[in-house]
Amino acid sequence: MKATAVRHGAPSRERMIEATGELLQKQGYAGTGLAEILAVSGAPRGSLYFHFPGGKEELACAALRASGESWKRRIEALTDAVDDPLEALDAVCKMLGDELEASGWEIGCPIATVALEAAAGSEAIRETCADHFAGWEALVVDRLVARGMAHALATTVATLTVAAIEGALMLARVHRSRAPLDRVARALRAQLAARTA
Amino acid sequence: MKATAVRHGAPSRERMIEATGELLQKQGYAGTGLAEILAVSGAPRGSLYFHFPGGKEELACAALRASGESWKRRIEALTDAVDDPLEALDAVCKMLGDELEASGWEIGCPIATVALEAAAGSEAIRETCADHFAGWEALVVDRLVARGMAHALATTVATLTVAAIEGALMLARVHRSRAPLDRVARALRAQLAARTA
Repeated sequence: MKATAVRHGAPSRERMIEATGELLQKQGYAGTGLAEILAVSGAPRGSLYFHFPGGKEELACAALRASGESWKRRIEALTDAVDDPLEALDAVCKMLGDELEASGWEIGCPIATVALEAAAGSEAIRETCADHFAGWEALVVDRLVARGMAHALATTVATLTVAAIEGALMLARVHRSRAPLDRVARALRAQLAARTA
Repeated sequence: MKATAVRHGAPSRERMIEATGELLQKQGYAGTGLAEILAVSGAPRGSLYFHFPGGKEELACAALRASGESWKRRIEALTDAVDDPLEALDAVCKMLGDELEASGWEIGCPIATVALEAAAGSEAIRETCADHFAGWEALVVDRLVARGMAHALATTVATLTVAAIEGALMLARVHRSRAPLDRVARALRAQLAARTA
């Protein structure tokens, strides 16, 4: 495992949330035990059920919400920094590829691993993942509509964009290569250019 | 869990592979224990290490190869049945949506769950997943090139198609709705129509 980004000066609750978010995206829900969360976070065992009376499921939902919000804030910051949706798309794909490569192909989407593996077994986790993806799609729709695209078309383009980037992050992780993400960025750019021409 | 499709008259080795393939795509690698595999397959405990001396990892790789091959054969059959790539795309997306909905939103891609969750922890599993996705992309490239598309463009279109369908299957599972898959099918159809016009 790569060095953790958990801030050891942060309060126990935040450290547990950060550690859980990192572990979930690398290895999923079933593969992440409470002992490992406590070891990575450095939080005392007694604080777990104090902060999260619902145990692992409640902690996982809090961690997914936090890492999903952080992901969306970074995408918003990038897309707000440029006027052109094609430039915004390039910037987002580049950032995601940089992060994935720098993490040794471990850090992709913070939600996808758990969404596939645990959503069938926990309604709370499924709803948390669904909220995240709905929020990410809404972010893309808002930006396209603000640039003059009709809402119905923007909805279709946003779902394609989110789905293709999620799939490309998975392919890039498995192949340990940016090539799938680069090809998807190029293809999404071409279809967006045709839609906005 | 839905009723299993494991064929109880089949030999132990095949029953274990089928049971493992089903469990992996629903709940991932870490969440699937050997006891559950034996219970679902009805195979005797002694036959596990007889057929798979490498234990759970070897059995999982065999199951991923088998369910991945089955997936590709069904896609090949659908795409070979029609001449038009747009019709082929519609047929594949419809089949995948039908299967996902009929399974109570549990049966999506047979490989994606494990690819995200376990590829970082097992090189054998990562390679098995990478081989599957490379084979699926090659299948799409071959069909597009056979219909006259240049190889470089076909490679980009194939990666977009595979990535977007994988992402859409995840969104559809999480939202318990075919809508993401339907929107992605429509968007992929539009970009393919523009590319082949």
